[in-house]
Amino acid sequence: MSDARTIRLTLAYDGTQFHGWQRQPGLRTVQGELERAIRAALGGEETTVHGAGRTDAGVHARGQVGSFPVRSTIPVRGIAARVARELPADVRIVEAREAPEGFHARHSARARRYAYRLLECDDVLFGRFAWHAPTPLSPDALARAAAALGGEHDFSAFEAAGSSPARPVCRVTRAAWTRWEGGWQFDVEADHFLYHMVRNLVGTSLRVQRATDPEVAMRAVLDSRDRARAGGTVPPQGLCLEAVQYEDGEPA
Amino acid sequence: MSDARTIRLTLAYDGTQFHGWQRQPGLRTVQGELERAIRAALGGEETTVHGAGRTDAGVHARGQVGSFPVRSTIPVRGIAARVARELPADVRIVEAREAPEGFHARHSARARRYAYRLLECDDVLFGRFAWHAPTPLSPDALARAAAALGGEHDFSAFEAAGSSPARPVCRVTRAAWTRWEGGWQFDVEADHFLYHMVRNLVGTSLRVQRATDPEVAMRAVLDSRDRARAGGTVPPQGLCLEAVQYEDGEPA
Repeated sequence: MSDARTIRLTLAYDGTQFHGWQRQPGLRTVQGELERAIRAALGGEETTVHGAGRTDAGVHARGQVGSFPVRSTIPVRGIAARVARELPADVRIVEAREAPEGFHARHSARARRYAYRLLECDDVLFGRFAWHAPTPLSPDALARAAAALGGEHDFSAFEAAGSSPARPVCRVTRAAWTRWEGGWQFDVEADHFLYHMVRNLVGTSLRVQRATDPEVAMRAVLDSRDRARAGGTVPPQGLCLEAVQYEDGEPA
Repeated sequence: MSDARTIRLTLAYDGTQFHGWQRQPGLRTVQGELERAIRAALGGEETTVHGAGRTDAGVHARGQVGSFPVRSTIPVRGIAARVARELPADVRIVEAREAPEGFHARHSARARRYAYRLLECDDVLFGRFAWHAPTPLSPDALARAAAALGGEHDFSAFEAAGSSPARPVCRVTRAAWTRWEGGWQFDVEADHFLYHMVRNLVGTSLRVQRATDPEVAMRAVLDSRDRARAGGTVPPQGLCLEAVQYEDGEPA
């Protein structure tokens, strides 16, 4: 019989002041702050928090999920309240629950949903979590480019050069441009993502929107599996991990 | 012949890290940062920047206007570019132009427009410039309450207690609730505002929305001229000075 329970936290954070999710010595990271908070909250209990997505420096989250084992017998709501008190203002616990045995925030995830927000005009408030597009946006052309992405494809063309090998075939279950307050946002959901994939998809979308047929142009980049054919990596501040979906069927 | 020109800057700032607009010894303020930037940009030239609205600590601006005299003969675009380089990232120059003789950002203003943004759910990104309303919002009731505010009224009931005396009669040219990404926002335009007036109007709106007739209830508070009859002062981070209008007829 195992004496450790698994806690599952849904987390929101403003990524501006973090060097990304992953713990790094001497740097302020979300995982590092969480593990420090859990230690402080639970009387020195050392733990490792696994995150569903290892967001980069400057990337935000509204629905990141972290899981960790605890030996403490405090009810989960009490654990969440204690940890929340130890967290800095730019990380918040949105939900806390006990997870089934064997649950792992990354390995158990079935889908992740990201949004990348573009601004049509510079804005000092929205600019913290959106990127001022350097080029005019053609919503119809962007929609056509996104139409090439749905389904199962090898996304190697959109993987950061030099990143660690991952299964390059991702199953994209949503790829669409929608209106938001400051401009247009790219919504994308997939079973998993390659490193920098969303930011490279947005950079490529901004380029192929000028093509005669943006869907054909996007498909050509995709089929090439060649990073050199894709567009640039847009900056991190526009990206937000919106939701993660698990077996229990909660919507991503 | 006067040897000083007047420069007019339209400014946007994220008020989170400022102790408001007004210069205060030892505190980081927007006016203080601007005057320091102008001094650094123009070879030590000392100047005073007048702002159209003296925003409080934590209040944001997208269309604040500041004016200041300069003896420098550098063209206005050059001045703006030099000052912009000296400004911190949370203050931006949106527009710069030469102002007519006698122009004063505060005294020449004909109208100011503010927005107060309410969130329906807590949000780590929007929460920087909006306030999570502690009570459900009834859009129809809020609209009826706002209907009481248009026109010329004595707004003493909404002036912070102990604030310095100002003309209590304001002419409100717009008061309406509109949808935004995170919930509902109160848009209000007037020739001038009393201290804390917008934040007290929002606090009162949240209270009177539960009245049988919110318009009658709001009018009763207004007519009482009694601060004790109005609702509380909502927090600063939801407030943003959106625009200022001058004689030249630019829309506020």
